[in-house]
Amino acid sequence: MGRWQPDARGRMFRAAMELFAERGFDETTAGDIAERAGVTERTFFRHFSDKREVLFDGAARLEQTVREAILAAPEGCAALDAALAGLRAAADQLGERGELAVHRSRIIAAHPSLQERELLKLAALTDTTSAALRERGVAEPEASLAAHSAVTVFHVTFVRWVSEQATGDIDACFTETAAALRALA
Amino acid sequence: MGRWQPDARGRMFRAAMELFAERGFDETTAGDIAERAGVTERTFFRHFSDKREVLFDGAARLEQTVREAILAAPEGCAALDAALAGLRAAADQLGERGELAVHRSRIIAAHPSLQERELLKLAALTDTTSAALRERGVAEPEASLAAHSAVTVFHVTFVRWVSEQATGDIDACFTETAAALRALA
Repeated sequence: MGRWQPDARGRMFRAAMELFAERGFDETTAGDIAERAGVTERTFFRHFSDKREVLFDGAARLEQTVREAILAAPEGCAALDAALAGLRAAADQLGERGELAVHRSRIIAAHPSLQERELLKLAALTDTTSAALRERGVAEPEASLAAHSAVTVFHVTFVRWVSEQATGDIDACFTETAAALRALA
Repeated sequence: MGRWQPDARGRMFRAAMELFAERGFDETTAGDIAERAGVTERTFFRHFSDKREVLFDGAARLEQTVREAILAAPEGCAALDAALAGLRAAADQLGERGELAVHRSRIIAAHPSLQERELLKLAALTDTTSAALRERGVAEPEASLAAHSAVTVFHVTFVRWVSEQATGDIDACFTETAAALRALA
């Protein structure tokens, strides 16, 4: 396959997930991933700095999704509702990965350095959310509190969905989790 | 000073904070900290694996405080109230550090690797909280949601208190932040 073939990144992601599942994360090299995806190793390194990076591909797109959904929420909508609209869009986006999300979660759970990276990703998502809420005119500390709450719903939803092997409807799971959060207060 | 002098750890923490403020974190060595605290370098390394560790000393005690306060909450108390009782005790404990907490926060904000470590600490605190809630009979996902919510109140309280140079009453700030969280839902 030529290196300009469309969706090379997507193929590298899927190839990496397959190889990590077959051989283990530690036993897979960047070269193995490139070979399976039908690209050169040079192409791999033009997209990713190392094999860890493949697991976090899509983080920027996720943040963009969250930001856009928050800014698109109806005017006068409560801070928590706007934040939840953003994170629901993110959950729906991850839901499209289906079983691959389950494999990815297992690899991350087995590697403390990847867990740290995952926490950083969630922290960045929280920052994106509170920044978008402030753009809507939400003051502090409400913006931070709503952002953390919505990211909590997203995170807990994701853990529940993955624990059921990603077979359920992630959007319905998000609705349930958000209702449980509101019921707490 | 003899190496068996009581509170050697406390002195090393304070010495480290002073030196990090005076010279910067990067320019301070473990040997400098030991010298300022009046202990040998060997003593330093018996307590801490490196100078980063000094900044995270007390994390285990904080988790213990949270756990005990949650288990001591009145029977029949709502999950979020029990979780907030735990994290309020943690905030009060950090409040005792006063200005040192401000110095520590500045150092962490300036070093991404320390920020990762701080996120791990918050994640561990969340796990401790949800485990203590489950011990009280709280089911999932309520235990995780209440734990994340209480840690959010703790985190946002701490950021607000530090941004005011730790001059305010951290307990009052916690009360206000918890009320703002409840008002969101």
